[in-house]
Amino acid sequence: MSVRAPDVANRIVLDEKEMPTRWYNIQADLPFPGSPPLHPGTRQPIGPQDLAPLFPMELIKQEVSQERYIDIPQPVQEALRLWRPTPLMRATRLERELKTTAKIYYKYEGVSPPGSHKPNTAVAQAFYNKAEGTKRLATETGAGQWGSALAFAARIFDLECMVYMVRISYEQKPYRKSMMQVWGATVVPSPSELTNAGRKIRAEHPDSTGSLGIAISEAVEDAATRDDTKYSLGSVLNHVLMHQTIIGEEAMVQMERAGAMPDLVVGCVGGGSNFSGLAFPFLRDRLQGKTRTRFLAVEPDACPSITRGKYTYDFGDTGEMTPLVKMHTLGHGFIPDGIHAGGLRYHGMAPLVSALVDHGFIDGVAYPQRTVFDAAVQFARTEGTIPAPESAHAIRAVIDEAVKARERGESPVILFNLSGHGLLDLAAYDAYFAGTLSDVALSETRIKELVGAL
Amino acid sequence: MSVRAPDVANRIVLDEKEMPTRWYNIQADLPFPGSPPLHPGTRQPIGPQDLAPLFPMELIKQEVSQERYIDIPQPVQEALRLWRPTPLMRATRLERELKTTAKIYYKYEGVSPPGSHKPNTAVAQAFYNKAEGTKRLATETGAGQWGSALAFAARIFDLECMVYMVRISYEQKPYRKSMMQVWGATVVPSPSELTNAGRKIRAEHPDSTGSLGIAISEAVEDAATRDDTKYSLGSVLNHVLMHQTIIGEEAMVQMERAGAMPDLVVGCVGGGSNFSGLAFPFLRDRLQGKTRTRFLAVEPDACPSITRGKYTYDFGDTGEMTPLVKMHTLGHGFIPDGIHAGGLRYHGMAPLVSALVDHGFIDGVAYPQRTVFDAAVQFARTEGTIPAPESAHAIRAVIDEAVKARERGESPVILFNLSGHGLLDLAAYDAYFAGTLSDVALSETRIKELVGAL
Repeated sequence: MSVRAPDVANRIVLDEKEMPTRWYNIQADLPFPGSPPLHPGTRQPIGPQDLAPLFPMELIKQEVSQERYIDIPQPVQEALRLWRPTPLMRATRLERELKTTAKIYYKYEGVSPPGSHKPNTAVAQAFYNKAEGTKRLATETGAGQWGSALAFAARIFDLECMVYMVRISYEQKPYRKSMMQVWGATVVPSPSELTNAGRKIRAEHPDSTGSLGIAISEAVEDAATRDDTKYSLGSVLNHVLMHQTIIGEEAMVQMERAGAMPDLVVGCVGGGSNFSGLAFPFLRDRLQGKTRTRFLAVEPDACPSITRGKYTYDFGDTGEMTPLVKMHTLGHGFIPDGIHAGGLRYHGMAPLVSALVDHGFIDGVAYPQRTVFDAAVQFARTEGTIPAPESAHAIRAVIDEAVKARERGESPVILFNLSGHGLLDLAAYDAYFAGTLSDVALSETRIKELVGAL
Repeated sequence: MSVRAPDVANRIVLDEKEMPTRWYNIQADLPFPGSPPLHPGTRQPIGPQDLAPLFPMELIKQEVSQERYIDIPQPVQEALRLWRPTPLMRATRLERELKTTAKIYYKYEGVSPPGSHKPNTAVAQAFYNKAEGTKRLATETGAGQWGSALAFAARIFDLECMVYMVRISYEQKPYRKSMMQVWGATVVPSPSELTNAGRKIRAEHPDSTGSLGIAISEAVEDAATRDDTKYSLGSVLNHVLMHQTIIGEEAMVQMERAGAMPDLVVGCVGGGSNFSGLAFPFLRDRLQGKTRTRFLAVEPDACPSITRGKYTYDFGDTGEMTPLVKMHTLGHGFIPDGIHAGGLRYHGMAPLVSALVDHGFIDGVAYPQRTVFDAAVQFARTEGTIPAPESAHAIRAVIDEAVKARERGESPVILFNLSGHGLLDLAAYDAYFAGTLSDVALSETRIKELVGAL
């Protein structure tokens, strides 16, 4: 027949027995000293006991560990096997449409029940908490990806789960809230009346639609003031990034099986965890001088912490309750505009990613919203999967790199993280097609003002 | 550590090279004669030319083929590999919660880009149409699963796609419509002003919220009156059921690998295609006397065609434009109540399924809506995945069978089709938690009235 064949998908799957059994801790391989977190009161380096009210001791140890590999506990492995290993795909139909000489591969994390990479760390955190006697977890969520992942993980290990959800998302994204409720979590809009941090904001700004920084303050206060409760964070921290390295460890095996190792690794960055999860195992070889792989972190123009922020000590939350960490930041009081990639609206960046950017191992690039959705729709119409707006930032950068490769006559192997699907973000696609998406970007004046205040 | 391990998931995946390369055509093995479709005008058996305005010749041939196996064309295989083979899972966490002695396995079709089994036939239909010169496909959709699958498939083979979407779903489920638009389809609410069938209904009932029967009439009229357009149906027809047998062929390999063959195979039924796709390859062995496997088709109390309908010739649509087929039916004028399992609201049942029920090879059971959602939530809280309301009908029956097995001290192997996820059905879960779901069921009087009129 005369119909042209869509190219072979080159879908590379691993058997559950091939799932990695240990995490990679990049702290063991850094060629520069780390910068310790500082106590919010004394501004002196914090010790394990300072964090004990918030986290189980095993996670505190992982946060500062210098061990290169840490075994994944058996119960965590078994929970991960509900959806892992995840597939690696060759994007042959996208390649053809772009007429590119580049080879494009992506690791697809959207197959997890909550639809993103977030449960990779959520199940680990729930497990260590359960093992140390925690009864209840408190956390914050913006767009809802992290809250739903923790709700799912808490249910697996029989923990209660309390989610402070940024009020504007609570109202605009009711289905993420529904998802959390299906898994049995309690979800309240933040700022709430349940914490001092929340009440203070509401007294000053009764109409506050909330922010991630405020919700973090609420969840931290909840955990710090209840004996049965600990706090869980979905990105930024060293142990969270480490739990995500299972993505890259699987991808290395799959790329080897495909007979192609990446020249360029790409991921979107909000707090930095999905990017790090894919990139760190490949960075291991680069740090050891074995490869010259490039690493590209993609962020939104509306919240450009890596490309425009200052590398300095700052708080993780609005309420100044968390330790100060050295990171690329736009300031802990900064509230970005309401772009649809809610998971990329955080004022700072993971300290490990920030340090690697500062030392030249990772590059950053920022894009405005509409061009990101152009890429998202192009991807959906070739590869099928409708990407999350966050993940579409990575796709935008990959398409641009693939077109550049064609123009230069180069044939690089590009690998990116498709960190989640967009099935709960279809309202954003509606806005895109209706032409009502705006390209929010920070002005030079505003950036100078933000950075100058740090 | 003292945390109990969640059981091993027993996730059985196949490599893309192991994907079946032919469909199983159960018509070759039926131990009874088939009942031919009748022309709506003459009431005489129809010939291929009667169907030619609606379908490409290759699908018409498949509809009546007596070949046991039909090769899957290479371009269709390559499109299927965007998400296939799909995983087979052992539901160990559900088994433990039920304290059952049964072993429960499920085939998970929700990993496709549109989130259900529907694209298995959509890509095949789009391919054969493209090969025979069709430029545009017209179809109907209720809840939107089928429409989104055809939109996705049409995009793969560069065809235009026109979807008549039941008006109440168009208004209540805007995100399914968004999905179709991401893949480039045109979606209109039905009844519409674009067809005679639609205009007639709107003239008589200006406030009509539509039905699947009406939308079929519109799509058939669209295709019959335009040279560039053919019609696509997402269930009921023999060739559609055959395209779905890739599910069961994969599952047979996976069950063999798990070392367990099913004593009971379960699926939900609307038109019958996901059930048949899983069941027919296992029925092959039963029809040949090699096994005594039981087959259970699960339907809603609100639309109980198998369990309460009449086995007789009836139209497939409200407008009496389609051929008459012999099937279990509640009458082509019947419009079921608006339950959330929109995919199970069809007045009839696939002729092949109906004949196998009539000859005692398949059993039927019907459930009310709330008990189905009880099962859906229990499943999501143990296995993680949030099921589509349609698929949850199968889960309800499986849980009941597993509890019975425990009570009887039996250890059957149960296999069911988790035909799709419920991420676009979270409003239905909200209604369940809010206690506003009603257990709509047809009264005895109404059933007598419906069946008496046939």
